[in-house]
Amino acid sequence: MDINLAQINDLFKQANELVLTTHIHPDGDALGSLLALNGYLSLQGKKVTMLLDDDIPSTYRFLPGCDRIRRPSGRQTKPDLLVVLDASDVERIGGVYQEVKAPVLNIDHHVSNTRFADYLYLDDTAAATGEILCDLFVHVEAALSLDMASCLYTAIATDCGFFRYANTSAKTMRYGASLLEAGVKPNLISEQLETKPLSSIKTLTEVLKTLELHQENKIALITVTPEIAKDNDDLTEGLINYPRNIEGVELAIMLKAASPDTIRVSLRSRSIDVSRLALSFGGGGHARAAGCTIHGSLAAAKEKILSAAARMMVGKC
Amino acid sequence: MDINLAQINDLFKQANELVLTTHIHPDGDALGSLLALNGYLSLQGKKVTMLLDDDIPSTYRFLPGCDRIRRPSGRQTKPDLLVVLDASDVERIGGVYQEVKAPVLNIDHHVSNTRFADYLYLDDTAAATGEILCDLFVHVEAALSLDMASCLYTAIATDCGFFRYANTSAKTMRYGASLLEAGVKPNLISEQLETKPLSSIKTLTEVLKTLELHQENKIALITVTPEIAKDNDDLTEGLINYPRNIEGVELAIMLKAASPDTIRVSLRSRSIDVSRLALSFGGGGHARAAGCTIHGSLAAAKEKILSAAARMMVGKC
Repeated sequence: MDINLAQINDLFKQANELVLTTHIHPDGDALGSLLALNGYLSLQGKKVTMLLDDDIPSTYRFLPGCDRIRRPSGRQTKPDLLVVLDASDVERIGGVYQEVKAPVLNIDHHVSNTRFADYLYLDDTAAATGEILCDLFVHVEAALSLDMASCLYTAIATDCGFFRYANTSAKTMRYGASLLEAGVKPNLISEQLETKPLSSIKTLTEVLKTLELHQENKIALITVTPEIAKDNDDLTEGLINYPRNIEGVELAIMLKAASPDTIRVSLRSRSIDVSRLALSFGGGGHARAAGCTIHGSLAAAKEKILSAAARMMVGKC
Repeated sequence: MDINLAQINDLFKQANELVLTTHIHPDGDALGSLLALNGYLSLQGKKVTMLLDDDIPSTYRFLPGCDRIRRPSGRQTKPDLLVVLDASDVERIGGVYQEVKAPVLNIDHHVSNTRFADYLYLDDTAAATGEILCDLFVHVEAALSLDMASCLYTAIATDCGFFRYANTSAKTMRYGASLLEAGVKPNLISEQLETKPLSSIKTLTEVLKTLELHQENKIALITVTPEIAKDNDDLTEGLINYPRNIEGVELAIMLKAASPDTIRVSLRSRSIDVSRLALSFGGGGHARAAGCTIHGSLAAAKEKILSAAARMMVGKC
């Protein structure tokens, strides 16, 4: 059932022992929200356990309290409440769901939420689950520690691209302002988030070397070869922004060799509907960001997607 | 003399004909502030001319009203007021100062301001001159058009790195929120600002290929060779952030061959005082960002700066 902020607070009051979790492949919003809520509930004298069925990416290990997040042990527990943050689907919390037998409260901002929980607070106008927690903390008049504020700031800033994405609202920015007043230093947080392993800059260099322009520079294509993908698969995220940001480029394509004959295709545009192109290869997505998988060699996949893109662009789809 | 916001408004009321200008090598704050103030004064029925002794970088040509900014013609004019925005020194406005004979009002946020103007409004706590204009527009209760709001937003967002730099205050973010309420779309503005010419991504690739690690990966060095620098000198700005952001790197160095025997050295760090290193080569700067020039070949300059850096890091300066 859908509940409101006051009812979330009632659930918290009634529970003594809570398990908090978030989605696998955790991002800044997942981890920041998890840690901020842990901070609040711990201050209320609750017995709180944070479980996550995944590793914590090194980028986020600066978040205060991160070392208290545990992996599920496989031993069943029965707390009073399981709080699932920022996960729209129960499969996204991995083994935690099997291990923790308790009523589930889900706090989320994804429009794709599958309504799997016993209690659901869903606000798809929020830029981040961290923004919903700010609503909650305002509602219950919680005092924010600097650690909690840093976690909330990281949650919000990462999910709205440091206040640059379309999901950034005036409210998002006002919460940012309040968190700075609570002592958050945006330069210190952004420095942490921008720090990347050496392998990441090497991967960037290798991938940029593959840049090709087609259709009078309207299509920019980069390739993650099997050699690059082998060790650094997770480091290729976001690289498609480089071709996308080139002046005059209408379609950016990234081909990634998941295996020698399975090519994952990412598509981005600021002007054409790339979801149609993805759909024609059995994929999907949004108008400005979509993807598909093509079976065959890198060369064959490249030829297929470039031909289809050229046809589409002539047709001005 | 120093004046306050009310006195700025008095000067505007008394003037019928105004010339507005800003600094050469204009950035988002310079142009955004220029255009926003032009919008406000034009709505007041004033005769306003915008002069700038430089080209407008393609990145900022999306700003509404940009096409009305003119270059100085060399013909002397005598308006009622010359308003100099975001420039801390009279030399930074180029030929405009010789051409326009009028009392000068300077609105600026640089701590290095030389106090050259007849009337000065200086607020070095403001993240941008655009933030000072927000103060002014609140003070005079100006209605903001969407065009003015977009210009103010660009001014503020570019000077505080989209709310990531240390100069971002709670007030900065609250003005950001108000400008979103005035209709600004942060995603559209950031897309414009992130668009780069094709030559820029090619320069990035060439420079990243030169990455070298020294001192057990604590020093990361990139080189802008004479071939790269020749055509794309302005495209190398910001590239030093790539080595700076590598995990474990304490000192990032960029060597740029301004000529075959003049090497410009940029230094960045998050942990050591690079101004001391720069000073030892006759340069200067801040603890975290400094620079110097070394005369000699690229190879000789590299050897000199790496030796000095190694000595300094052993000494834990």
